[in-house]
Amino acid sequence: MTDIQKMADAIRFLAIDAILNAGEGHQGVPLGMAEIAATLYARHVRVDPKNPLWPDRDRVVLSNGHGSMLLYALLHLAGYEKLTIDALKSFRKLHNVCAGHPEIEQDAGIEITTGLLGQGIACAVGMAVAEARLADRFGPDHVNHRTWAFVGDGCLQEGIGQEAISLAGHLRLGKLTFLWDDNQITDDGATSLSISEDIPARFRAAHWHVQELDGHDIDAIDAALDAAKSDPRPSLLACRTTIARGIPRLEGQRGGHSAPLTPDDATAARQQRNWPHPPFDIPAEIRADWAAALASRTDAIPTKYRRYTDVENPPEFDRWHTATLPDAWEEFWQNLGPNQLPTDTPRPTILSSGDICDALTEILPETLVLCADLEAPTNHKRSRDAFTADHRGGSYVHCGVREHLMGAMTCGIAAHGGLHPINVTYLAFADYERPAMRMAALMGLPGIFVFSHDSIGVGSNGPTHQPVETLASFRAMPNMQVFRPADAIETAEAWKLALERSDGPSMLALSRQDATQVRTDRSGNLTQYGAYILRDTEGPRDITLLATGTEVGLALQAQADLNQAGIAAAIVSMPCWELFAQQPADYQTATLGTAPRIAIEAASPFGWHQWLRPTDVFIGMEGFGASAQAPVLYDHFGITPARVVATAKDLLTH
Amino acid sequence: MTDIQKMADAIRFLAIDAILNAGEGHQGVPLGMAEIAATLYARHVRVDPKNPLWPDRDRVVLSNGHGSMLLYALLHLAGYEKLTIDALKSFRKLHNVCAGHPEIEQDAGIEITTGLLGQGIACAVGMAVAEARLADRFGPDHVNHRTWAFVGDGCLQEGIGQEAISLAGHLRLGKLTFLWDDNQITDDGATSLSISEDIPARFRAAHWHVQELDGHDIDAIDAALDAAKSDPRPSLLACRTTIARGIPRLEGQRGGHSAPLTPDDATAARQQRNWPHPPFDIPAEIRADWAAALASRTDAIPTKYRRYTDVENPPEFDRWHTATLPDAWEEFWQNLGPNQLPTDTPRPTILSSGDICDALTEILPETLVLCADLEAPTNHKRSRDAFTADHRGGSYVHCGVREHLMGAMTCGIAAHGGLHPINVTYLAFADYERPAMRMAALMGLPGIFVFSHDSIGVGSNGPTHQPVETLASFRAMPNMQVFRPADAIETAEAWKLALERSDGPSMLALSRQDATQVRTDRSGNLTQYGAYILRDTEGPRDITLLATGTEVGLALQAQADLNQAGIAAAIVSMPCWELFAQQPADYQTATLGTAPRIAIEAASPFGWHQWLRPTDVFIGMEGFGASAQAPVLYDHFGITPARVVATAKDLLTH
Repeated sequence: MTDIQKMADAIRFLAIDAILNAGEGHQGVPLGMAEIAATLYARHVRVDPKNPLWPDRDRVVLSNGHGSMLLYALLHLAGYEKLTIDALKSFRKLHNVCAGHPEIEQDAGIEITTGLLGQGIACAVGMAVAEARLADRFGPDHVNHRTWAFVGDGCLQEGIGQEAISLAGHLRLGKLTFLWDDNQITDDGATSLSISEDIPARFRAAHWHVQELDGHDIDAIDAALDAAKSDPRPSLLACRTTIARGIPRLEGQRGGHSAPLTPDDATAARQQRNWPHPPFDIPAEIRADWAAALASRTDAIPTKYRRYTDVENPPEFDRWHTATLPDAWEEFWQNLGPNQLPTDTPRPTILSSGDICDALTEILPETLVLCADLEAPTNHKRSRDAFTADHRGGSYVHCGVREHLMGAMTCGIAAHGGLHPINVTYLAFADYERPAMRMAALMGLPGIFVFSHDSIGVGSNGPTHQPVETLASFRAMPNMQVFRPADAIETAEAWKLALERSDGPSMLALSRQDATQVRTDRSGNLTQYGAYILRDTEGPRDITLLATGTEVGLALQAQADLNQAGIAAAIVSMPCWELFAQQPADYQTATLGTAPRIAIEAASPFGWHQWLRPTDVFIGMEGFGASAQAPVLYDHFGITPARVVATAKDLLTH
Repeated sequence: MTDIQKMADAIRFLAIDAILNAGEGHQGVPLGMAEIAATLYARHVRVDPKNPLWPDRDRVVLSNGHGSMLLYALLHLAGYEKLTIDALKSFRKLHNVCAGHPEIEQDAGIEITTGLLGQGIACAVGMAVAEARLADRFGPDHVNHRTWAFVGDGCLQEGIGQEAISLAGHLRLGKLTFLWDDNQITDDGATSLSISEDIPARFRAAHWHVQELDGHDIDAIDAALDAAKSDPRPSLLACRTTIARGIPRLEGQRGGHSAPLTPDDATAARQQRNWPHPPFDIPAEIRADWAAALASRTDAIPTKYRRYTDVENPPEFDRWHTATLPDAWEEFWQNLGPNQLPTDTPRPTILSSGDICDALTEILPETLVLCADLEAPTNHKRSRDAFTADHRGGSYVHCGVREHLMGAMTCGIAAHGGLHPINVTYLAFADYERPAMRMAALMGLPGIFVFSHDSIGVGSNGPTHQPVETLASFRAMPNMQVFRPADAIETAEAWKLALERSDGPSMLALSRQDATQVRTDRSGNLTQYGAYILRDTEGPRDITLLATGTEVGLALQAQADLNQAGIAAAIVSMPCWELFAQQPADYQTATLGTAPRIAIEAASPFGWHQWLRPTDVFIGMEGFGASAQAPVLYDHFGITPARVVATAKDLLTH
């Protein structure tokens, strides 16, 4: 007979031993949630540690990521090969799977990076959406799994937590379960210092199935998990727990959270829990219980189904899950006709992006568009159905005014696999989802973030809605690829590069206002170089104009005016700095040239020094925008062809 | 007898006329909330449009800022002189008080900039906290006012909205009232596309006083406002409304939100509402009703009390409300002794900041510290009492794990006036409050944002908690002053500059780990120059080391090593780029010198090109951090004196 209490104590003492060994760590969560975790794994979670990438595995998320030893201990006990005892002994050391907070490593069972509170449960919502969409597409034989998230008080105080609760309830994500560690302690001490609301009532208000129970009562946990599985709503297990349970000095105390452990604490815990085993030593019978418990569910499923890809799965299932582009990929782009990629008249690049996104519905049906209540002005829904509680076949999620959740769902969907998430809102709201976008960059997940209304071109909605420093702030972010395409063709090129990228996210900053069509040539993807000479001079260059986005059209106008003034100007379009920085030095030099440079971007100058010498000039925004029609603003802030011409003349006469 | 319905229709038609005249705008809110706004102003709000800066005025916030014409119409009707008919006619035009979204202009009655959903109600929580704290300090004769916020569905979908609800309920902010425009329509259409929760239940769960009513029934609104005022809890009026009420083609429809109005719409509305008056023409009797309604409450208070400052107020009240530094200000800084500013041993700059912050409790009792559940590791509470539901005298607010709210509260407190808000958390969480910090920068509000754990110096908590691109992302933000002080003295200097700043926010990026004390000289504030020569060479410079924060100590070590190798290196400390960029060119040139430069900062290189020539070298982070002890990480990422020495030798031999 499986002894779940002993399985739980095995987690507890691996955590104590590893944290004591590391000299630091957060014991509160692993000691307080040991019974919950052990019961979940003993009786309910369906994973296969020998085939950790099995697409139809349950997803387990530790949203309270500071309690990472909970996850490492249970992954070790569950039999994930990378989680050796040595790894536990190297907890919080460099180059170790057992990092301070969980860092995504799916073949070790770590589904997603967590630690910034609230991100994990929001990612879990994305995972549950992915499961529902894939189950609809491929049927329950291939996709039928659950998402479980360990949740702390902090996750539920963060606003993103409420966004997650609200949308999960609305979408009736019945296979999503939150396991709340209601230990009534946060870093500052009693939760009553900063929160007094009725949290279960909050979940009930959002139509969740809520059960309140003793988080150390294994039978109660088991019964609640059974009930959660049979309820069509998402479920909350509100588990009343004792933080740091098992360490007499700390249990139920503020210090239980992360106060340094002493050898005496470990000794006292062993006495209290009747655990005579030496550090890191788990008796064979307890290990056997762990192995048998997991096998009891996974063994029922033939091994061949549990592999990452399998002949038993339909080819399209494998293609989606291996993120393989379809055979007709290059052909698709070559064959985009004037209906899908109109280039004859000026057009907002957000509309060109919508054109591409709509064309993708056939060639890449695994794309799933998320949008934060801006369907009409961003125009990326088009022929897509909405994904709803009643219609899982849709590929467009109305996320509501919840950008932060949407960003984290993008991470969750990408980490889940099988779908390619596309995130759509205004660039002014990128700051709302920035913490989640950073997680995508850190994890190297290939989500695509499409932003409209990318500058003062927004017009009268004014400075709150006009990004100025946003481009720079994301160009500064490691592993984020920032595109600001000039026209429809560059927009298509950026989309193609973003979709082909597998090791990180991309963002597209797109215009609300018409963009001049600066390109006609579609023979090669020039955006892949990050920057390129759009128009060269016939003879020697007098001046080089660097520009991005809608300002490339402005540069073209300036070039014509300069030409009339006898000044030969080349235009370099710079849709993606990150890609340009990766080009060989001689390509960069040849592109930028030696002539004086004028950079034009309706944004903050910050970062432009990278491409400008001290004598070169930047024309753009020095402060925030203002409320007026877009053309008035371009004039007001002096971002005009006339200013470029005057600046060029000035540069050439000094 | 006051005809509130006519007062409401006056709002309605000013909005229709102004939006039609501008050619764009959002009619949904002003038309749907006209009765609520008119009843509020006719019977409850206590303001004095002739003395708009009266410190004890009620604060009115339009959180659904896209409905700006609601605010402009009612401020016009209430008699704010800047809100002329001409201003209404210039709605959404350049340099006009009637911008697309409300932009703070308190002498026009616009208390705060809004438009990004959720920010307004979160600011309102800050305002209500400020009122409670000031009322405790100065008594009800001087401080006794209310905060009213108009709220849309979007504000309540945003996570920050829940953070606001949660903390306001917890702190029992009884003088705070939300007026929710429950029109069941968002930009995408029916709210049911993305939300189905029981919103009143959410408020009740957080211990709010909730009333549900018909938002067009003036008697019901009036009664509910009376009840709200007499209840000790914060109050929600859940007002069921019809969006765009009065325009037959649009009322209750998705297009009611912001579909372009036509002259026919205006005509049809005039018929439906029985409003025969020409555009922008408000009959005298309706104007009289508006004037009388407001006067009925303000006239009871002697004019002298309603001015911005007054002899009847205690001098300390005036000092706080005019944000005047005390007479002993310079003396205070000169007299900081070794207990308040210890400089003899290495010390985390976050601790030095805590020392200063604690010393301020006597000289600047108007400081109010907000912290997001990190009291122990940031150490800024010290001798401060907590501000709680039962103790309004505290100057430390336990904000819980709600950084975004905390940022917006900082704006709300600063905009309210009378208190100086100080916001404390980890730098990794700055992204969570970034949208609110941007609002502080945009509004020019003098909040201070103190961030600890500013680099890989965080150590084993790993890359989620290690800022890399954060400094760059805020240096890119207009009007945000970013300090990264090297030691206790620079930390004190940065604090002084931040406290003296009146036209925008400042942030301090501080270390968790020990910082070398690089300065002993306290005779002048060198941080005010942004960058300065910390150590010069005796003879000509071979090399210049540029550094910030804890890396200045590292540069000192490198300087000694270079000296031994016969290389003369000067050290330039650069605690604040924004201030350095404002210095005269010759100061900048003299400081940076002409020798080869090596910049050292444990952060992204992005932006450093501003201070480096192509042949200079940056030593810092090229990607995200990792989980290990801080010294291990500095070695791992090559941010070491040895690397500086090797780089210098390399630079000097090529």
